Parts: sequence; C-alpha cells; structure tokens
Amino acid sequence: MKRDFLYNEIAGNIANKIKAGILKAGERLPSIRILSKEHGISMNTAKRIYLELEAQSLVQSKPQSGFFVSPLSYLKLTLPEPSAPLSVSNNTEPNDLINDVYSTMGRNDLTLFSIGVPSGSLLPLARLKKEIVLATRELKEGGTEYETLQGNVKLRRMIAARSLSWEGNLKESDIITSHGCMNALSLCLMALTKPGDTLALESPCYPGILQLAVSLGLNVVEVATHPVSGIDIHALKKLLPKINVCLLVPNFNTPLGYCMPDESKKEIVALLSMANIPLIEDDTYGDIYFGAERPKCCKSFDMDGNVLWCSSISKTLAPGYRVGWVAPGKYKDQILKLKLVHSLSATSVVHEAVANFLMTGRYDNHLRRFRKTLQENYQHYALAIAEYFPYGTKISRPQGGLALWVEFPKGIDTVELYKYALKKQISVAPGRMFTLQNQFQNCLRLCIGLQWTDDLRLKLRQLGNLAKIFLNNNFS
Amino acid sequence: MKRDFLYNEIAGNIANKIKAGILKAGERLPSIRILSKEHGISMNTAKRIYLELEAQSLVQSKPQSGFFVSPLSYLKLTLPEPSAPLSVSNNTEPNDLINDVYSTMGRNDLTLFSIGVPSGSLLPLARLKKEIVLATRELKEGGTEYETLQGNVKLRRMIAARSLSWEGNLKESDIITSHGCMNALSLCLMALTKPGDTLALESPCYPGILQLAVSLGLNVVEVATHPVSGIDIHALKKLLPKINVCLLVPNFNTPLGYCMPDESKKEIVALLSMANIPLIEDDTYGDIYFGAERPKCCKSFDMDGNVLWCSSISKTLAPGYRVGWVAPGKYKDQILKLKLVHSLSATSVVHEAVANFLMTGRYDNHLRRFRKTLQENYQHYALAIAEYFPYGTKISRPQGGLALWVEFPKGIDTVELYKYALKKQISVAPGRMFTLQNQFQNCLRLCIGLQWTDDLRLKLRQLGNLAKIFLNNNFS
Repeated sequence: MKRDFLYNEIAGNIANKIKAGILKAGERLPSIRILSKEHGISMNTAKRIYLELEAQSLVQSKPQSGFFVSPLSYLKLTLPEPSAPLSVSNNTEPNDLINDVYSTMGRNDLTLFSIGVPSGSLLPLARLKKEIVLATRELKEGGTEYETLQGNVKLRRMIAARSLSWEGNLKESDIITSHGCMNALSLCLMALTKPGDTLALESPCYPGILQLAVSLGLNVVEVATHPVSGIDIHALKKLLPKINVCLLVPNFNTPLGYCMPDESKKEIVALLSMANIPLIEDDTYGDIYFGAERPKCCKSFDMDGNVLWCSSISKTLAPGYRVGWVAPGKYKDQILKLKLVHSLSATSVVHEAVANFLMTGRYDNHLRRFRKTLQENYQHYALAIAEYFPYGTKISRPQGGLALWVEFPKGIDTVELYKYALKKQISVAPGRMFTLQNQFQNCLRLCIGLQWTDDLRLKLRQLGNLAKIFLNNNFS
Repeated sequence: MKRDFLYNEIAGNIANKIKAGILKAGERLPSIRILSKEHGISMNTAKRIYLELEAQSLVQSKPQSGFFVSPLSYLKLTLPEPSAPLSVSNNTEPNDLINDVYSTMGRNDLTLFSIGVPSGSLLPLARLKKEIVLATRELKEGGTEYETLQGNVKLRRMIAARSLSWEGNLKESDIITSHGCMNALSLCLMALTKPGDTLALESPCYPGILQLAVSLGLNVVEVATHPVSGIDIHALKKLLPKINVCLLVPNFNTPLGYCMPDESKKEIVALLSMANIPLIEDDTYGDIYFGAERPKCCKSFDMDGNVLWCSSISKTLAPGYRVGWVAPGKYKDQILKLKLVHSLSATSVVHEAVANFLMTGRYDNHLRRFRKTLQENYQHYALAIAEYFPYGTKISRPQGGLALWVEFPKGIDTVELYKYALKKQISVAPGRMFTLQNQFQNCLRLCIGLQWTDDLRLKLRQLGNLAKIFLNNNFS
C-alpha cells in the first residue's frame, strides 16, 4: 500500500515537471539506479515508473543511453472532446461509406490508414508458415477432420494459461474457439438478444460491431465516452433500465485507444451483474499495451459468469487465419450450440498452427517487439500530425492498440476529405463510420499498425495539406 | 426426343426383367456392342443405359468382364415408407440426443456409422497437405491477410466453371465463399427470415438444419417426402400460403439419398418463384452421384435469382477445412453484408489450397474413385443388412451421397438401440434426430463413407443381432 503510494507520487511528480516544462523535451532523466537511490525504492520500481511514463508518451527510452523527456510531451495537440451522443437508439447506418472504405481492403496501390490491421512486415510470417506446415503433418488426417465442437484443446489451454497475466484465471474448459473475434461477438449477441432488444456501446465504436448489431435487429444506444478513461459510467447507469446487453472494448478500444481504469472495470461489472445485464467484452487489443503491464479485463472482476470475454490473434498475428475465442461464463451452453449450427467447427489447420506457435513462447517475443514498434509509430504519427495538420487538430493518446483518433477543427468534413485523399492514393476511415448518429464529422481514424517509412510521413503530410485546404476554402 | 424415348424403353425393359426375376442375380448381360446392335442405338447410349441401371443397383459392372445382374437386385429389402409428418410446425428438438451423438465425433475407439463424413482413407490427404504448404508460400504475406469479402477469386472461378456440368452457368461474381456449407445456409436463413417466420423442409432432414432453424426462432414445417423422388410437391403446394422460405437438399439428401427428378426440380423452382418464396438449395452432395451424370440442381432452372445455391467440399475433400460457398441469386448484397458482420472473411490459406487443388483437375480424378467406392460401400452395406438385420427391415436406395437410411420393423426404438450399440463401440444416428416431430423412432442413418473392411461387416452384424434381440424381447 505504502509502496503504491510512493510509486504514484514519484511518477506523478515527474509527469508534472514534464508537463509544466520544468523538464524539457530531449532532456536526460536520472538513471534507474539514481532514481532508486534518491527515493529509497527498488530498481524494479524505478524502472516501472519510467515505463509507465513512457506508456503515457512523456518519457522516451533510448537503447544503451537511458531515459529522456519525450518530444511528444510538448506537442500542442490537445485531447479530442469526450463524445456526447444522443441517449436514444438512432440507427442511421452509414452503409455506403463503410462498404466504400472496406472495399479498399487489400489494395496494394493505396496507403491504407483506413484498415485496422498490422502490416505483414511487423508479423512473424516465416515462423507462422512453418507452423502451418507442421500442423498439416501432425494433425490426424492432415487437418481434414472436423475439430471437436469446443475447439482445439491446446489452443484453449494456452489461452487459459495466458489469462493468468490479467487475473482471468480461466480453465481450458471455460473457452470456446471461434472463426475470429467478430464471429465470437456474433455468437454472443445471437445467444443473448432477440430483434428489438437494446444494446449499449461505447461511442465512437468499431463499425463492424455497429453493423452486426443492426443486422441482428437490435436498437443501439451509444454511450458518452471519454478519450482517456472510456465509457461514462454515470451515463451508462442512467441507461440501465433501457438496455438488455452491453458490449465494451475496455482495452485499447478502436478508435480511441484508451485503457479503462481497473476501478471502472470493476464498477461496471458489478453494476451490470446487479442489473442482470450480460457484458460482452472485446479484448482483441488487450495484448498490445504500451505500458509496463498487461491490463486487466472486465472478466478479471467477473464473480458470477456474467461477462463473455472475446478475443483473437487477428490484430497480433494473422488476420486472415480467423482464429478467435470466447470465454462465455454462464452462457457456455448457448454459445456451444450456436457455434454448432452456424459454423459446425473451426478450421483445424490454422487453429492447430496458432496453438503450437503460442506454446513455443515465440508469441511473447513477437509481442514485445510489436508493442514497441506500435508505440514508436504512434510517436512518429503524433509528431507528423503536429507538424503538418491544421492548427487546432486534436489527437487521442492511445495506451495500446492499432488506432489513432484525429479530431480536426470544426468545418472539415472527413467524408469529403476521404474522397479527395483517395485520389492521392491515401485511404482513411472517416469518423462517421464509428457511429449510427450524426457525430464525428470532423474526425478520422488512422491505423498505426503500418511500417513507418519516409513515404508514410509524406502521406501524412499530404493528408494534412489537404485538410488545410479544406479548412481555408471551407471546402465541405 | 425419339432417342430419349428409346433409351427409357430399353432401360425400363431390362429393369423390369431383373425385377421380375427373368434375369437372375449374377447373370451376364449382353455386351454394350450387342445391346447397341440389337436396338439400333449408339454404343454410347447403350453404355449410358447400363450405367443408369448400375446407379439403381440393378446392374453391376466388373472390370474386363462386362455387366452382370447385381446381387442387390434380389434383396428382400423393400423401400422405407414415404414420410408423413404433421403439416404444422411442431418444434420438439431432440437436443440431448443430438448433443450425445455429435459428442462422439472424432472418437477413435468407436465405429462411427453416426457421423456423415468420409473416412480419411478415402481422401487425397497427401496432395491436400502439399496444397496447404504451397498456399502459404504463394499467398501474399503467407495468407495472414484478410481475403476480399466475396472470397478467393480462383476458388469462385473454379466453382463457376464446374457449374457448367449441371447447367448452372454461374459466373465468379455470382458466388460468395463461406466457412463451410452450414455457414452458407446460416447466412441465407439470416438474410431471408426473422423469428416467427415459417420454413419448409424435407422430412427426414439433416439435424444441423433443424437446429439452425430453431436457433433462429423459425417455425419449421416438415413436408412429406418420398424415399426415391423426394419432397411431395402436392403437399408443398398446399403449404405455400403458410411458408416464408423453403430449404431443400434435392441431390442425395441425407439421410434418404434420393435424387429429385429434373421435372420436380423445375416445377418446384417455378412454384416458389411464382409465390415469391425464396428457395435455399443445399447441394453439398451433388458431386457424389452414383449414376452416369452429374445431376442438375434447382439452381439450373432458376430464372429470376430466387434460388440460393449452397455447397462445399466438406463431404468430398476436407470437412475440417471449412470451405463452402453460396450463389445467392438476387440476395447477393444481403449475404455479403451478413458475411462481413458475422465472420469478416474466410480463412485465406485453406481456401487458396482448395482453389489450387480444383484447378489441377485432380479433384475430378478423386471424385471418380470416391464415387465408385461409395457405391460399392452401399452394396456391401445392403448385402450385410439383408443378411444380418431383422426380417422386415427396409432400406433406402441412395443414388449418391454418404447416407443409408434403415427402417426397422415397428417395435424397435433406435434411441434405445443407439445406447446399447454404443456399449459395443458402435455409434449410429437414430431417426429421431432427423425430425422435430415424433417420427422415425424405428429408423436410423448409417454413414457409408467409411472404409469397407471385414471389421465393418462384423459391426453391422453386431448391430443386426442387437436389433433382433430388441425385436424379440420387445426390449424398448
């Protein structure tokens, strides 16, 4: 307890000095050894303090040289506004826009800031190929047989083992595999809702979830959401009598990238459990944290099986493999049955390959590098945006994940900007995709999972220039 | 026209002589040359006549020796009764039974007559493995990327090309790939129905379809079905005002194995189109015909895009790959959207592997051998059943597919028989699984996709003995 207090005080102190400009961008910070001596804390604690500040992009580590004040700490880019959607369901789906943006998926001639997937160059492709080959050799009948309904047992065992890191304490029998995370979410919503039911979501929200909800005939209530702390619990509380189910992405939500604080997770789980409202948790981004530790999930605080925890390797290893899963708590029987009737079983070969990859320990090595690259990318993007985008542009402060949320000054219509950018071979995801209401017209989402290059910087510059032209000419 | 008449007359004549005992089991038939001379028909027509009779198991070809009257022609096994379900929806799902039977999937200690999949020993496993390895090499980023939404274009092109053989005349743009055929059926039913709608099905019907319909909140009407000609069109016609959608398996339906005649297919397509009721056609077994020619589909007669044709390679190549597709006619946009929200995309690696396999032409070679084996299996099973099963047992006359339907004399409860057989390491699929009503208590389905061995014959003998004990002791 005392240690935590000391830890928070020291970290807060350094953060304040940086924010106040007492410690200047680029300035070297005391070494871990000195910090630990100075405050009478362990080397480990001292290191955790710097890593925590690094996750907040206030501090930057340089290999072999130590810790420095981050150039980002001085950016004149404020946070986007908390969202303020109408608290009624208002299903105006931007179908054509979503179809248009998703139709650029896989196009090699475009810079795809629009699609939330990691670039292949950041993935362990050679090793994955080997795992596929090995899986065809090791599986009975080469993987041509149906898997058992619940899914690959080695994969479920590995997911259960990894859940210890976020205090999920799952057993292999708690988990059901699926055809990617979207399929897991679809099974959960089908199990828990009927048309006409009401679903509460964060706002902005991933378009696939909005489309899924609409396609199942649900009424969607978007809930006010803060760009750093996540869904507004007070607003959610007021809506409880109206809603049947809640779906949240508490860790590194796309597009905002926040990590909901543990206390909020705990509070929401208790709140929904009391109201007997199931909570579907999408934790697809949970493993790509920029901070020192794997964040907890809502599932970590689940006492009565009311949380259906969904995830996948689509954002960390191989989107095209379609390997996902759900730990559905007390709804296991319903989910198993739906899996049987809608897809029968998972694709044996890829699920076996991923299971074996996870068992080697290579996954953690990969994740370490991958997280570092993503955080560096975020910093590159932020610096480029500060330099090239119109004055008054605001950006999110992702603490993990693949997304950066950009809020332009009012007057820029990002749907129009999207069309013009496409002519310059740049694809972005306009803010309007992330809501069923008329919001976020001046926002867009950028994927930070691309390989950083000079060309990428140039594309951001072109995008910024285009935005400036829009603003000056009041183009939209 | 005249040629068709002659063809039918000659074939009918021979069939009648066999059935009347004028031509006896084992007797050699005139050679193709003699038959052609005798009737003034071409050698080709003469050959088609024998192949047709072989498909009906009246004639048997022996390599290098010619055609003989089949030993099956004399079996004292009559056809099962046409089904006569109640013409109201009556959703009493035998859940526990289905779960129990499916839970034996993959168990090596059992003889799995119960599961409708081909034995691995009948599949081109080595070649499929190679295709998987090649696919990981050839695909961009090793197949870790998302596919385009509509699915692998080479696969769609091959499916389109193959549709010429049944006069489907599909284009690659008509086809959407899916995670197996069940997933295609699920997308179709989700696109076309809302809870409370009524679905017409053949009876008996594949349990997965029944479960899917119930899980979507549909009322199921089972329609009277004849074991040789399929669904009773007259009965269907009377139900039209009550139904919203119809799902049929006209080619080698599991469990009955019939091939619905072309005229019936044509009539049903016209009937449903006029009534504006969409027809979902499951053609998963269409490629495993025992006759001389690939049968047409309902889709072959579709004039206005009202037929959603679904199929897969799950019964011919690799159940565990989950490669299926749908040609949804005028419902394409809805299906595409549902695919996006429920599964995002297919598993790139396996879809690419199957596409390449189809392109080599090896698929047709495999199918030729596979069909021959299945038909031989059917004959082995039929002879064993005639020898070992209780007097009065009836069996279906599959013209293709993987299923044999057995109807015991009244008094044998196959759910009880199933439990006792399981103790002898034999798993069968009781008739009650294939209906939501109280029917088929004395029926069961046997998978004929297993490798025929002396041990398999022994298991059929054990099963027959068990049935005899049940019958004599009035066990149930």
